[in-house]
Amino acid sequence: MIFLTRRAGFSASHYYWNEAWSEEKNRRVFGRCANRNGHGHNYTLEVTLAGEPDPQTGFVVDLKWLKDVIEREILAAWDHKHLNLDTPDFAHAIPTTENIAIAAWNRLEPTITAAGRARLSKVRVYETPEIFAEFRGQQ
Amino acid sequence: MIFLTRRAGFSASHYYWNEAWSEEKNRRVFGRCANRNGHGHNYTLEVTLAGEPDPQTGFVVDLKWLKDVIEREILAAWDHKHLNLDTPDFAHAIPTTENIAIAAWNRLEPTITAAGRARLSKVRVYETPEIFAEFRGQQ
Amino acid sequence: MIFLTRRAGFSASHYYWNEAWSEEKNRRVFGRCANRNGHGHNYTLEVTLAGEPDPQTGFVVDLKWLKDVIEREILAAWDHKHLNLDTPDFAHAIPTTENIAIAAWNRLEPTITAAGRARLSKVRVYETPEIFAEFRGQQ
Amino acid sequence: MIFLTRRAGFSASHYYWNEAWSEEKNRRVFGRCANRNGHGHNYTLEVTLAGEPDPQTGFVVDLKWLKDVIEREILAAWDHKHLNLDTPDFAHAIPTTENIAIAAWNRLEPTITAAGRARLSKVRVYETPEIFAEFRGQQ
Amino acid sequence: MIFLTRRAGFSASHYYWNEAWSEEKNRRVFGRCANRNGHGHNYTLEVTLAGEPDPQTGFVVDLKWLKDVIEREILAAWDHKHLNLDTPDFAHAIPTTENIAIAAWNRLEPTITAAGRARLSKVRVYETPEIFAEFRGQQ
Amino acid sequence: MIFLTRRAGFSASHYYWNEAWSEEKNRRVFGRCANRNGHGHNYTLEVTLAGEPDPQTGFVVDLKWLKDVIEREILAAWDHKHLNLDTPDFAHAIPTTENIAIAAWNRLEPTITAAGRARLSKVRVYETPEIFAEFRGQQ
Repeated sequence: MIFLTRRAGFSASHYYWNEAWSEEKNRRVFGRCANRNGHGHNYTLEVTLAGEPDPQTGFVVDLKWLKDVIEREILAAWDHKHLNLDTPDFAHAIPTTENIAIAAWNRLEPTITAAGRARLSKVRVYETPEIFAEFRGQQ
Repeated sequence: MIFLTRRAGFSASHYYWNEAWSEEKNRRVFGRCANRNGHGHNYTLEVTLAGEPDPQTGFVVDLKWLKDVIEREILAAWDHKHLNLDTPDFAHAIPTTENIAIAAWNRLEPTITAAGRARLSKVRVYETPEIFAEFRGQQ
Repeated sequence: MIFLTRRAGFSASHYYWNEAWSEEKNRRVFGRCANRNGHGHNYTLEVTLAGEPDPQTGFVVDLKWLKDVIEREILAAWDHKHLNLDTPDFAHAIPTTENIAIAAWNRLEPTITAAGRARLSKVRVYETPEIFAEFRGQQ
Repeated sequence: MIFLTRRAGFSASHYYWNEAWSEEKNRRVFGRCANRNGHGHNYTLEVTLAGEPDPQTGFVVDLKWLKDVIEREILAAWDHKHLNLDTPDFAHAIPTTENIAIAAWNRLEPTITAAGRARLSKVRVYETPEIFAEFRGQQ
Repeated sequence: MIFLTRRAGFSASHYYWNEAWSEEKNRRVFGRCANRNGHGHNYTLEVTLAGEPDPQTGFVVDLKWLKDVIEREILAAWDHKHLNLDTPDFAHAIPTTENIAIAAWNRLEPTITAAGRARLSKVRVYETPEIFAEFRGQQ
Repeated sequence: MIFLTRRAGFSASHYYWNEAWSEEKNRRVFGRCANRNGHGHNYTLEVTLAGEPDPQTGFVVDLKWLKDVIEREILAAWDHKHLNLDTPDFAHAIPTTENIAIAAWNRLEPTITAAGRARLSKVRVYETPEIFAEFRGQQ
């Protein structure tokens, strides 16, 4: 079994706001992340697949295909976008690094599973080089 | 003469839009950067001062002081903010990496010059690790 | 389950010396690390917590709180210090990267467990970008 | 149990070519990687050992010894070499990142196991900062 | 005046060999770089342009255009290629980092000058993160 | 003219202390850097030479030779050492990043000038990735 990872980047805006709370509580809990004009990050995504290398190619999966899947499923939706305003992924979830990792998994897993070549093993999202969250699916 | 540099980071949103242009022209020239909901980056700022080390301390300037100047003059205004909407710096200039470098210089230079210890030599701003702009003042 | 990581840095000195050994054996085993004046590193610490995001906040834990815990429990004790001379952690253990990872775990685990929000999953310590040790607790 | 990692780099050439296929099929499947003159990378290798720190030294293993093992078993064979033409490792396997990780494991595991101090836990190979493969042995 | 830089990467093979020398002298001077099967690197290129930001756009040049120029003039010729065998650039010059920087300048300068928007200020080429060469044109 | 740079690292301890001052003034000015047990860093040194590539080799200088010069003149004296206690360089100068850059220049310049192949153009020293000082010689 090999764990094969491809990294990709996207630049996006977000803010933290819980609609069920007062403005005062939002500001107290989320601090400067509650700024409704938003702020942004260069996110880095790491997508890890687990599988056996094909003896004909030496590939777990073709990395060109994986790059295309990431671009189509994630970057087209999130790159140069406002995560709260431009995507449906965070209609009911605050776009924290944790929730972005889960949403990335949910976007990628069906396509990767359907391809039948390898399973999605984990998704890691860096908000900055100092902060990252990893999701390995429901277990 | 020593060139002493301190790096700092800030996370901000922006978009590119020229109010004098039609929406169509904005979209054609600025592409996905014209998204009015904004997108964002982890910017990295490098502030370089030129001066002689003080024989008593070995410092061109006290780096703790320089860190405080950067926090007060730049990070307080730009970190976790929307550069188009939350600051006056880009009221008449599009917040491109080029203009952010100039605006950072304009924010830092008076304080550094007034301190009389070293001159501001250059300001470099990274929008991503792949793109950066450098300003060395009007020459 | 999400694995949420926060990175932090500290600059410290250390040397390797086993008091039960002769000077000759210390020099033979530890080489230039046995220099009693010490040498130092910019250590990087990665603290990983495992837990479920709170549906109200999207947080496994508040990263501001985690940053404060790391600063209070680790950086206050180790940053700009000599690990052999300035801390009790290495009175009976040589401050190798391995032992620093264990000591960091021991400093962090009670506070994180007491908070009841997530469990400490692993601690990774980089001595340099080329060398790192990871501890996941007694298992 | 501590997981101790040492990183090392090597610069090598390779190409992707399956001798059982036509030139046309090789070009279609492997694209520009099928260029028979080869292209190359600065590979980064991470070797992770699992074990208990020796109470006398604080070492899982002596990192100087591990560095020497990596240099003798891997770098002497692969650094500044053409992986397809200069080594026996890829006579029957295409030198993809996946297969390089397996071949590195096969080169390192006997020496590390024979030393009896710690077990080889995983080998990670970066072809670029964006692409890496990890092998944890037959399980 | 702003100095605007865009970074790009390419993976290529090369060897060092002076046809006017004996095999023995090539091996003595160039060491393991003289391996005729070649070895390779992930090169990083930094292209710096100097100019004034356009008041309408805030751009010294459109970075999308600069990216396309680098892809067309450099990456199409050098990425996934063998520098000695696949390009005319090194027919009469050994592909050292120094000569790669000069060749990159010669490929980029005419297009950038012809565009009339900014001048090419410098080209920096990293062979590895530890080695880089910079060319600023004939002065 | 090409500017050719080689990077090298060393791990060292230091403290800041001016013998002409009271303990109280040292603590006030230098803060936690005044800890007499010392603390340390992974320093990174960048040595830049300016010269013309030799038409026979394509080298400004042989990078193997430059690596050896840096190891002999700098790393042998400073790596795994305490800069205040183990070297003569900081007998009359506090080992700030500024003074380390000057001392590195003074150690390297005679050997590089004597070799007659290229001139030392600049020395840059990183104390951390966030702080660096550059010296270009007396001008």
